[in-house]
Amino acid sequence: MPKRVTALVILGLLLVFAASAAPAAAQEEDAGHGGPVVPVLLGLVVILIAAKLGGELFERLGQPAVLGELILGMALGNLALLGYGGLGFLRTAQGLEILAQLGVILLLFQVGLQSKVQEMLSVGWSSLLVAVLGVIAPFFLGWGVSAWMLPREETLVHVFIGATLCATSVGITARVLTDLGKLSARESKIILGAAVTDDVLGLVILSVVVGTIGAANTGGGLDALDALAIVGKALAFLVGAILIGGWLSRHVFRLAGFFKIRGMLLALSLAACFLLAYLADRIGLATIVGAFAAGLILDGVQYRNLGERTKHSIEELIHPIAGFLVPIFFVLMGVRVDLSTFGRVEVLGFAALLSLAAILGKMICAAGVLERGLDRLSVAVGMVPRGEVGLIFAGIGAQLMLHCERVISPPIFAAVVVTVIVTTLITPPALKVTLARGAKAPG
Amino acid sequence: MPKRVTALVILGLLLVFAASAAPAAAQEEDAGHGGPVVPVLLGLVVILIAAKLGGELFERLGQPAVLGELILGMALGNLALLGYGGLGFLRTAQGLEILAQLGVILLLFQVGLQSKVQEMLSVGWSSLLVAVLGVIAPFFLGWGVSAWMLPREETLVHVFIGATLCATSVGITARVLTDLGKLSARESKIILGAAVTDDVLGLVILSVVVGTIGAANTGGGLDALDALAIVGKALAFLVGAILIGGWLSRHVFRLAGFFKIRGMLLALSLAACFLLAYLADRIGLATIVGAFAAGLILDGVQYRNLGERTKHSIEELIHPIAGFLVPIFFVLMGVRVDLSTFGRVEVLGFAALLSLAAILGKMICAAGVLERGLDRLSVAVGMVPRGEVGLIFAGIGAQLMLHCERVISPPIFAAVVVTVIVTTLITPPALKVTLARGAKAPG
Repeated sequence: MPKRVTALVILGLLLVFAASAAPAAAQEEDAGHGGPVVPVLLGLVVILIAAKLGGELFERLGQPAVLGELILGMALGNLALLGYGGLGFLRTAQGLEILAQLGVILLLFQVGLQSKVQEMLSVGWSSLLVAVLGVIAPFFLGWGVSAWMLPREETLVHVFIGATLCATSVGITARVLTDLGKLSARESKIILGAAVTDDVLGLVILSVVVGTIGAANTGGGLDALDALAIVGKALAFLVGAILIGGWLSRHVFRLAGFFKIRGMLLALSLAACFLLAYLADRIGLATIVGAFAAGLILDGVQYRNLGERTKHSIEELIHPIAGFLVPIFFVLMGVRVDLSTFGRVEVLGFAALLSLAAILGKMICAAGVLERGLDRLSVAVGMVPRGEVGLIFAGIGAQLMLHCERVISPPIFAAVVVTVIVTTLITPPALKVTLARGAKAPG
Repeated sequence: MPKRVTALVILGLLLVFAASAAPAAAQEEDAGHGGPVVPVLLGLVVILIAAKLGGELFERLGQPAVLGELILGMALGNLALLGYGGLGFLRTAQGLEILAQLGVILLLFQVGLQSKVQEMLSVGWSSLLVAVLGVIAPFFLGWGVSAWMLPREETLVHVFIGATLCATSVGITARVLTDLGKLSARESKIILGAAVTDDVLGLVILSVVVGTIGAANTGGGLDALDALAIVGKALAFLVGAILIGGWLSRHVFRLAGFFKIRGMLLALSLAACFLLAYLADRIGLATIVGAFAAGLILDGVQYRNLGERTKHSIEELIHPIAGFLVPIFFVLMGVRVDLSTFGRVEVLGFAALLSLAAILGKMICAAGVLERGLDRLSVAVGMVPRGEVGLIFAGIGAQLMLHCERVISPPIFAAVVVTVIVTTLITPPALKVTLARGAKAPG
């Protein structure tokens, strides 16, 4: 036990040491010779250590590691409130931002790799209904709450805030269900099936909102026909990517099997992921939609020819790269939360109401369970956590401009992050309670 | 056979497709919503495919893959000469530059991981002498050639050009020796031992030159005492990193073994690499010196505690990340070569003379072999390739400013790249000839 404490203390000291070196990096940018990579190096040291410290702390508390990365990022980003401004470069270094974006693109690529198209098409009506209800209700609740609390913001901002509440991140739920040995229960199957559908629906909604904001910037408005066109475009992109991309990648990967050079599988997979992310951006969708589609395409059979020789699957090869880049995204999301905004009581109130909307909105999922005799409340509770997906949406909103202002301003961003944290934190204990109740009195 | 051709054609078409999408990326930067990551995504697609195509082509020609990456990079970077300027963003996108820098830092980290301190201390006098002679002779020959050909450049530029010729990249030699089944011969041991010493000597010389340029920018000159101080600093950094860092990392890694979270070994290794790279820059050395030192420290025993649980070694974990980032560096180095500079006959002449100096300079290594009856010429020929190390030096020079001008200007950079290519290309056939000769008439 004391050794563990020593380990934490040493790592903490390393973090303090790295942080104390930071002002030098921020101030005298040209003192060294390494150019723009130098602040990135220091930022990476701070972020990597913070991510592991935070992750460890939260896993030991029975919480998902991603929350620890987020909250340690919040602590690092707000040291200025305690009078220490040396880490300000974490917010501004463009190199870190690009690495974080590559991280989130790889994360969605991984999600795509883990989602099977077959499973998505065969989730059953309960999963589909749970997913659709769980997207619609929080969307309008979030829209309503922000329209009420932020009457001076534009309608599109309210819509975007609603969209950030749509997502479901069932990683946490899956973990709790695994721990309780309930993963094969019918309720769990419905939740996990709904989550995959949720990913797709969420990406479609994101595409619509982002596309409408783009149109609004060039003079257009919120038009139902345009929105429908974007839905069509997003679905066409996903379906087209799966059909054309699947056919093309099957051939490319098979023929690439004739290559002698090592690293071919990794290079081709990354190229496919980045290419689709790029194409998605070109046609006005978010880059992560393309990355998700690339993951769907490359999931499974196509690389057998190469896989036999390389003995690693795409997922295994991507894993260390994602392990390096993904935490950068979550720590930086935390860094961007400006805790001083909570000094304004209305921001706290907005965060509280938004969290309530996020939780209540998913409760309607209980109505989507068609089969009798199932524990509907547990299904609804299992859909509550927003986790990484809500954060990704908020992060995109924080970069989008609408009439020369950020769609998600710093106070709204802080409120959304709080919502993500609250919904994610309450799920494990709540799920344990509802599952215990359901086990006693099924039906 | 036709299938292989089809595979190459399809990949080539993908490359053309990605390249044809490029002008859009370059021109309308804000058309999409993804921000600064979008041109990086497209650049990565082009670079990843080009690296594998070039690597495959050159490996099939019996040449090292790195040359293929470099030469395909040169082709991509000079499409503008054929009237196609859509890939110009590859030269300017800062995100790609940072990824390339991280790549070269990880490459030197890998080199450090593969170099054992024990081996370095026990290479024997022949290896040491071969290494020292092979560093001194090309250094002064290169200095002389550039002083004669470029009389209008400052002395420090001549010195830097000399320094780029010091390096030895025995990866190519080791490959040829392996192919010929000669890796356990005494000559091979001397070459490989000398190469490790060469890495350290090269990094020390680089530190001195870079440090002197830094001093010259603030008004100082080329002072023997200052140079000696920098040698001392570089050696003290390496020794200090090995001693203090070794002790610290042993404890950190052992205590980190108590952590439950996954990815701890990867995160700590990367953090150590980036931290030492950063510290090296802070004290005026090149970032790669720190990365190399980090590799030396983490080589081997320290992570057993973690390694048992993670079942992957640091090298295995770093491999996919390096496989992603390192080719970016070499392709971008090729992209930066401005082929139009060879339109000037004096640049071609300089490249030819520099290549000659690089080859002749290493021939003196033959005098360093103390044992009798060995094939001295083969040892000398084996030391000729400059490979990646010469490129890294040239790349650093291209970023360094001396009195507000680049130390390595575009024509000089192009000439150094030619030298690297020539020395690397001639080694395999030359080594086969000398080894065959040596086998017939030893002595």
